[in-house]
Amino acid sequence: MLSVENTWKEVRDSGVDTVIVPFSAIEQHGHHLPLGTDWFLADENARRLGERLNAYVLPALAYGCSREHMAFAGTVTLRPTTLAAIFEDVVESLREHGFKNIVVFSSHGGNWILKPILREINFQYPDIIVVWGNGPLADDGEEVPEDIHAGRGETAAMLAVRPDLVKNHESAPASSGIVGQEFNDYVGMDKSTKTGAWGVPAEGTAELGEERIAGNVDHQIRYIEWALRRVEMLRSEGGATDR
Amino acid sequence: MLSVENTWKEVRDSGVDTVIVPFSAIEQHGHHLPLGTDWFLADENARRLGERLNAYVLPALAYGCSREHMAFAGTVTLRPTTLAAIFEDVVESLREHGFKNIVVFSSHGGNWILKPILREINFQYPDIIVVWGNGPLADDGEEVPEDIHAGRGETAAMLAVRPDLVKNHESAPASSGIVGQEFNDYVGMDKSTKTGAWGVPAEGTAELGEERIAGNVDHQIRYIEWALRRVEMLRSEGGATDR
Amino acid sequence: MLSVENTWKEVRDSGVDTVIVPFSAIEQHGHHLPLGTDWFLADENARRLGERLNAYVLPALAYGCSREHMAFAGTVTLRPTTLAAIFEDVVESLREHGFKNIVVFSSHGGNWILKPILREINFQYPDIIVVWGNGPLADDGEEVPEDIHAGRGETAAMLAVRPDLVKNHESAPASSGIVGQEFNDYVGMDKSTKTGAWGVPAEGTAELGEERIAGNVDHQIRYIEWALRRVEMLRSEGGATDR
Amino acid sequence: MLSVENTWKEVRDSGVDTVIVPFSAIEQHGHHLPLGTDWFLADENARRLGERLNAYVLPALAYGCSREHMAFAGTVTLRPTTLAAIFEDVVESLREHGFKNIVVFSSHGGNWILKPILREINFQYPDIIVVWGNGPLADDGEEVPEDIHAGRGETAAMLAVRPDLVKNHESAPASSGIVGQEFNDYVGMDKSTKTGAWGVPAEGTAELGEERIAGNVDHQIRYIEWALRRVEMLRSEGGATDR
Amino acid sequence: MLSVENTWKEVRDSGVDTVIVPFSAIEQHGHHLPLGTDWFLADENARRLGERLNAYVLPALAYGCSREHMAFAGTVTLRPTTLAAIFEDVVESLREHGFKNIVVFSSHGGNWILKPILREINFQYPDIIVVWGNGPLADDGEEVPEDIHAGRGETAAMLAVRPDLVKNHESAPASSGIVGQEFNDYVGMDKSTKTGAWGVPAEGTAELGEERIAGNVDHQIRYIEWALRRVEMLRSEGGATDR
Amino acid sequence: MLSVENTWKEVRDSGVDTVIVPFSAIEQHGHHLPLGTDWFLADENARRLGERLNAYVLPALAYGCSREHMAFAGTVTLRPTTLAAIFEDVVESLREHGFKNIVVFSSHGGNWILKPILREINFQYPDIIVVWGNGPLADDGEEVPEDIHAGRGETAAMLAVRPDLVKNHESAPASSGIVGQEFNDYVGMDKSTKTGAWGVPAEGTAELGEERIAGNVDHQIRYIEWALRRVEMLRSEGGATDR
Repeated sequence: MLSVENTWKEVRDSGVDTVIVPFSAIEQHGHHLPLGTDWFLADENARRLGERLNAYVLPALAYGCSREHMAFAGTVTLRPTTLAAIFEDVVESLREHGFKNIVVFSSHGGNWILKPILREINFQYPDIIVVWGNGPLADDGEEVPEDIHAGRGETAAMLAVRPDLVKNHESAPASSGIVGQEFNDYVGMDKSTKTGAWGVPAEGTAELGEERIAGNVDHQIRYIEWALRRVEMLRSEGGATDR
Repeated sequence: MLSVENTWKEVRDSGVDTVIVPFSAIEQHGHHLPLGTDWFLADENARRLGERLNAYVLPALAYGCSREHMAFAGTVTLRPTTLAAIFEDVVESLREHGFKNIVVFSSHGGNWILKPILREINFQYPDIIVVWGNGPLADDGEEVPEDIHAGRGETAAMLAVRPDLVKNHESAPASSGIVGQEFNDYVGMDKSTKTGAWGVPAEGTAELGEERIAGNVDHQIRYIEWALRRVEMLRSEGGATDR
Repeated sequence: MLSVENTWKEVRDSGVDTVIVPFSAIEQHGHHLPLGTDWFLADENARRLGERLNAYVLPALAYGCSREHMAFAGTVTLRPTTLAAIFEDVVESLREHGFKNIVVFSSHGGNWILKPILREINFQYPDIIVVWGNGPLADDGEEVPEDIHAGRGETAAMLAVRPDLVKNHESAPASSGIVGQEFNDYVGMDKSTKTGAWGVPAEGTAELGEERIAGNVDHQIRYIEWALRRVEMLRSEGGATDR
Repeated sequence: MLSVENTWKEVRDSGVDTVIVPFSAIEQHGHHLPLGTDWFLADENARRLGERLNAYVLPALAYGCSREHMAFAGTVTLRPTTLAAIFEDVVESLREHGFKNIVVFSSHGGNWILKPILREINFQYPDIIVVWGNGPLADDGEEVPEDIHAGRGETAAMLAVRPDLVKNHESAPASSGIVGQEFNDYVGMDKSTKTGAWGVPAEGTAELGEERIAGNVDHQIRYIEWALRRVEMLRSEGGATDR
Repeated sequence: MLSVENTWKEVRDSGVDTVIVPFSAIEQHGHHLPLGTDWFLADENARRLGERLNAYVLPALAYGCSREHMAFAGTVTLRPTTLAAIFEDVVESLREHGFKNIVVFSSHGGNWILKPILREINFQYPDIIVVWGNGPLADDGEEVPEDIHAGRGETAAMLAVRPDLVKNHESAPASSGIVGQEFNDYVGMDKSTKTGAWGVPAEGTAELGEERIAGNVDHQIRYIEWALRRVEMLRSEGGATDR
Repeated sequence: MLSVENTWKEVRDSGVDTVIVPFSAIEQHGHHLPLGTDWFLADENARRLGERLNAYVLPALAYGCSREHMAFAGTVTLRPTTLAAIFEDVVESLREHGFKNIVVFSSHGGNWILKPILREINFQYPDIIVVWGNGPLADDGEEVPEDIHAGRGETAAMLAVRPDLVKNHESAPASSGIVGQEFNDYVGMDKSTKTGAWGVPAEGTAELGEERIAGNVDHQIRYIEWALRRVEMLRSEGGATDR
């Protein structure tokens, strides 16, 4: 494992081509944990990854997107576009040095801007791989998802809404995908599907489509009405926190 | 329900203060569904929402972030920052007219930049609510999550890594949260938690922390190693799609 | 004609290399026309163009730059830079698919940011042509303009202001241009002029220059003084609209 | 008249509240005129304006948007967004000093990005007026335009395309506007129109609409086809310029 | 002293209103020092400052602008605009919490974008002070500079170039400034000078001006000619580093 | 010498490959000098440079970054990012014409954003040289600096703070650099140093390091405390200027 405790010469001579890039946050963690919790954990996580992968481990970026914690003293938050710019610059620096595998993770969920940027970067620089460290494992009992794109669900919905535009779906081949859905971050759908569809179009029916749309809308309606009331109530209250 | 088929006077005189803002994509949908599938479905969904909510329904934005589909003819993709700018401008226009509730959803998963921007907007303009239409429902059998922030998991991890920084977690009060986690998009944690923590810190132990960290790292290692091999293989192959 | 009602395969197999990209606006249209007027008309216009040109027709972008209509409920406006970013992304997507001719028009005059961006794009990507659909027709009785750049007018003005810098204009060749002025959006002046000048420099005189400058300034002065008074008056009034 | 040859104290004590902000370009002007032609003329124009208006005259910005002239040595071009940023900064500086009337003009047509930005600025800062120095004069024999927005033309087009959405246009009041169309740069349509419409809706007929749409499409088609051929030809040729 | 090892409650209850914001870099430091040298030193420096000032000490930002070191493995560099965005976001976060004094320093000289941004921030938010930690000390034997702005030097130069624009400089009051020049980062010149000038205008003469300009130009000429030769030579060589 | 008083043809035929790009400011210069002082001086300076270097001399950009002078009427200020964009566009225009040597200087110190941008540009476009016209002269009696990077000072500091990370510095070779430090704007450290270090690492001791750090911190502390008091006092006062 290499880190910024090494010299540039040691990094260069190591032959290492993998880098760990950890993201975190400086944000409140209740009365019992420090503001730097995510930052400490990210570095610990990165160190362990670096040892197992024999990688060059960068320091965790202390600052992240923590807007929802800004009511608590000491929290620091970045605009999502700032975090995106940092991510791009770090990857471009590493690519310039010839590293091939860049493992990115965040100990803080609010840094989600990293995911769409990660996708853009992977399609912009097909000579490197920027991997999201917390992707799901298909061989771990988690099944490969079956109805991702233009499959049973969307086919059914179109049969309900614009059946005139659905073409021979009964004979459309099923395509269960050969990797997990998160691979859309790394390669185009042309690498992982037979027709561009992912799922079983033939199982789609107008009834299923109508049911699916109606159920979804019912769900949304109840959620939205409830949430609007709840937010209005919460905002007008003093807050639930013992401060 | 109102839409762009109405005149400005009808919108103004209606007293309506809710707007539906649908996002979608122009992207391939296999051999049997049209490029506009997400767009058609988003408008249908929006119309149904608008009727139930008595809202002003905007046309679905046709273009979205579809980078992973760009190998298929006819697909159009926006940079995430472009989609973010559109979202901001539309919300600012609606807020200028005095609308209070802005319901946003996307029929296309790849438009995820909308979520971090939605969070920023809600904190920037506390006089309106921008709601994510597909949030989870707590009263639907889904339980309110219990270990979100500074709870059992993070406390355990800190006990394993930096126990010197954990303060009296055994007596730290449990705080299960009074709404779902997605409410962090709408209000600060100070509105929904007692200490800023969300979970049961007292249940954290160093053993649990070590186990959790190690398990996570094991998972990551296996995923990353497998994914690196798989991506390399897929890229060097001609692709699985029958084109 | 192709549209987003087609599948990606139909678009790919068609051999079509022309795309129609319509822009419009969601803005008030008086008491008798709907907010979506420009949007409906843009799609109608695009469809007719697409049929005649055998092109792939994209949906009209609903949103445009409508700042001046924001006093009317239901109007939506984009910042000019947002509209510019959308335009760039759409053209880059289409270019990536190999389309060669991109026909752009706007049913709404306020989207004028499209013109300078169109010019930048054409010079950035000389392998495609982005055409402004509403350019003037030279063979329709409209004459090719004769005094565009460094011709009679500018030569005269320089003779009045800095005659020491004008070099042998009496013998400078006339150059009437071989296409219309709007071709500056597509190719450099080196493609359409003999010397870089467009007009008849030899006709320039100091008297004409003085007259031209003075007339222009007179015009400006009267306009500005009148406009300043008129704007001040209008702003202090309640407005002329029956709302 | 004041200029940058004065001291700050002279400017402050003058009571002047009008500024002239000239834009220009450094671009080729044929064999007989210097690269700085637009720049010299802009300063001359600005000086004359400043004397007549008793204004503070800023130096003409030398650089402008001259992409179409970049094939000629010595030309300098800015990105449109750069020019927009300069314009915004200068106006904000002047507004900070308390100037009320900012007269902007460009001696170079290619700086058209200034117009949409000027509109945005005027709506952002209603306490100042940024005037486009070359606006048309209504009292000069030029008639106030009569069919600008939601009038005869658009009403007719909607009667041809979506007659179901046109509401009682026969009895819709004519509204000829009380100022010229360029006033949309300074105030909202609510200041200058009765219904939001500008024109005579009652004169619209479906026949006129069909004729208008068809004529426009015919025009566009002929233009596009001719232009596509012409551009292709021009690009493949060596160029017409004697260089 | 407080740091991210504290809880948010400890920070809030401390009454501390000063924050230390350290910047650094991850860049090569020869064969004998680690890549993290600047980062380690910045944190050490910040800790000492924090203890003496009783401040809230943030972690040093690991990444900085290190373009000139990118030939050495392991170095990471940010675009200047990215570093500027981080700086702005951190200051805005701290200001939102009510901190008043923000002490910024960089252990790495290449982060100089921080200085112009620091100036902009101080003028944008006059309710806080962002102090550059490495400013010069006037009471340390360093004299307050005497010829900063519109003083002897510039007056002399104008006497040589445009004497017609120099007004009664012989009787213009000397103004030695009441603080050091770096105070232009914190307050306007109106706070620290009598006339806006800083220096002794009366000492300016045309001879001095000519001498000053000529000397400066001589210096520039020799430097530029030598540097152009030297850079060309260095670039064409293999480099002097033992790598 | 060439300028914008020449035609494009004269510039093209001249064989000149050097350009002078002067920056300045429109800002107050006391009671006795005009607002355009920097602008006039920059043009004078540029002209003299142009004559000596046989260069193409562009007009000085009138506007600059003058935030600290905005309390004085007539001053104009640009955001640093705006000035950076102008600089980039001008250099890219000149590079497109084939110029090789671009000499940049500013008659106004507040335009310091130019320096980091200049560095970025030089590394982005290694086929041209953008030279900062006011660089120091090594052959003029000024010695080449000896302790720039990873030398005595930094080595000593690391010996005091993290001695475990310092590797055999006693035998690390001294490297005095073969050019001045400002060459980091033009070429990477790999061109000018033996090990990446610049200085004499072997002279570093822990005592020197401790002394250096402590002295620096003492200096900072006294400065910051004094400055905080002084700024607070100045802001609360009416200002020292006779206005």
